[in-house]
Amino acid sequence: MSPNKVALVAIYADVLQIGARNMQNFDLLNAVGQAHKPVLLKRGMSATIEDLLMAAEYILAHGNNRVMLCERGIRTFDNKYSRNTFDINAIPLLKELTHLPIVADPSHAIGVRRHVSPVTLAGVAAGADGLILETHPDPDHAVSDGDQSLTLPQFGELMNQVRAMAEAVGRSV
Amino acid sequence: MSPNKVALVAIYADVLQIGARNMQNFDLLNAVGQAHKPVLLKRGMSATIEDLLMAAEYILAHGNNRVMLCERGIRTFDNKYSRNTFDINAIPLLKELTHLPIVADPSHAIGVRRHVSPVTLAGVAAGADGLILETHPDPDHAVSDGDQSLTLPQFGELMNQVRAMAEAVGRSV
Amino acid sequence: MSPNKVALVAIYADVLQIGARNMQNFDLLNAVGQAHKPVLLKRGMSATIEDLLMAAEYILAHGNNRVMLCERGIRTFDNKYSRNTFDINAIPLLKELTHLPIVADPSHAIGVRRHVSPVTLAGVAAGADGLILETHPDPDHAVSDGDQSLTLPQFGELMNQVRAMAEAVGRSV
Amino acid sequence: MSPNKVALVAIYADVLQIGARNMQNFDLLNAVGQAHKPVLLKRGMSATIEDLLMAAEYILAHGNNRVMLCERGIRTFDNKYSRNTFDINAIPLLKELTHLPIVADPSHAIGVRRHVSPVTLAGVAAGADGLILETHPDPDHAVSDGDQSLTLPQFGELMNQVRAMAEAVGRSV
Repeated sequence: MSPNKVALVAIYADVLQIGARNMQNFDLLNAVGQAHKPVLLKRGMSATIEDLLMAAEYILAHGNNRVMLCERGIRTFDNKYSRNTFDINAIPLLKELTHLPIVADPSHAIGVRRHVSPVTLAGVAAGADGLILETHPDPDHAVSDGDQSLTLPQFGELMNQVRAMAEAVGRSV
Repeated sequence: MSPNKVALVAIYADVLQIGARNMQNFDLLNAVGQAHKPVLLKRGMSATIEDLLMAAEYILAHGNNRVMLCERGIRTFDNKYSRNTFDINAIPLLKELTHLPIVADPSHAIGVRRHVSPVTLAGVAAGADGLILETHPDPDHAVSDGDQSLTLPQFGELMNQVRAMAEAVGRSV
Repeated sequence: MSPNKVALVAIYADVLQIGARNMQNFDLLNAVGQAHKPVLLKRGMSATIEDLLMAAEYILAHGNNRVMLCERGIRTFDNKYSRNTFDINAIPLLKELTHLPIVADPSHAIGVRRHVSPVTLAGVAAGADGLILETHPDPDHAVSDGDQSLTLPQFGELMNQVRAMAEAVGRSV
Repeated sequence: MSPNKVALVAIYADVLQIGARNMQNFDLLNAVGQAHKPVLLKRGMSATIEDLLMAAEYILAHGNNRVMLCERGIRTFDNKYSRNTFDINAIPLLKELTHLPIVADPSHAIGVRRHVSPVTLAGVAAGADGLILETHPDPDHAVSDGDQSLTLPQFGELMNQVRAMAEAVGRSV
């Protein structure tokens, strides 16, 4: 992703997302730091907690303080049954280390549609401030990421569970 | 741990625990497979889901079918702020792959007392059938694992949260 | 790194290096693919062999076929005594999978000056086509990467060993 | 492996090998520490350098000081083209941290016959004191580990290369 496309994207998008593979593309971080839109910074697949916080500093240092940090799964030795390993520890650790909101991305983390819901609920239970979930009216024919996309009924059911769980721990959706 | 100690331990213990470092100590697995006590088999710190299931087969093949599988954190590149990475994905994956009950061990997984509760709640939300939690009346002076042991009031509060969360998803404690 | 800086750098530099953190900065890969200078593509710290080869395809697809692949160490669970883990396997694997030359970067891989030489010799023995080594007349006072930079006498001695080793396996420097 | 088999094995074997999966089977380490035979201690697939040294201490503490440490590959995120990742860094690091001899096991580390030779030469170049290589007169029909076993001609050729390389760095075989 090129920094000089940021201004154009910022006209139309509500949130600027920095993908995991660009978490340390420093010129791009600087560019979104100068934009007037919130930024969702996704954790690189082998970025430590500290790497993620340091990447966020590039954005903050340029005056954009509307930064959300996103846990989307890390690379580990075990990738037979899932795409990445959702790092649930990262949620309480980041909540302690920074005031920035923490968003969970269970879709990319586990990468298997029928297992997205339990990982989502786990993210909420651990304290995530937000969720990013892939849904599709017909995921089996999606152009991209269909394997991990929820159907619309699955999404509706999951949101009911999320609400119930949030209330159980004194939070609201 | 030596296989010939199993018979003695089995007289006094309610459950035989195979530690993570012995998950592939095959003679020991064979020995507990012949015992008449339930077995808690802890996942090795770099064991894949498949390695864990195959280790359980050694116990089952000797006639002991009361085996619980325990996720206790895996080794990843990120170990500055936590002891291990709790593999939350493992819970729904194992629930699908086996009928054996899945126990979460958040204490060893994150290894930091004040973060044990969110990881515990995440484990319950993801579908864990059981929990193993370290508690201590005075953890700062514990002989072993004090850093990750809950105080008794913390444990009591956590159990209330676990109950509320379980009920929210239609389960009971 | 911004793609629009490539043309300027290409005027002065003999080789364009893509750093490990930008291995999947696809706009940048496209830009160096259009430049008329050789490219040293460093493997990301958690990039698989396949990720590296696919990243090289972005450069090749734009018409620049002077691409060198560089192994510079991967992220593993063991980082107490070294900075990264030099993936020696990657050298024979890449030699088989691609015709592109393979360069070893032992300095970044182990990150400790006194251990750079054995890892360098290992890289040569495994079949590396090139080496990238950090040297400094006074590494203890270097602005960057001093811990892993060889002194000039160390570099001279290492080059003698490299020559001897290359000859032993029928190659020349 | 059961500790009470050690005495029997020690009658017939020249060297007692502790397999990677038993590196932290502490009762077994204690038992070989009391035997009067050299011990080859293989590094666990996710054991740190420090874990390996601490495991060796169990043997040494029981009076057996003829211990060899063996690097046989670690578990990383990249396992498509090789079985494990040979940790070449471990050789110079261990040579500095301990006086015990370091043995390289390239067969298990890369797990692919045609790539065993380059990894072997790398191990020698990095300073390994010994090698353990799997060979078989007809590896395609071997009962175990055939994929990583050298044919006898391959083994002969490799030993010639090892000798040449050792001499190049002032060592002898």
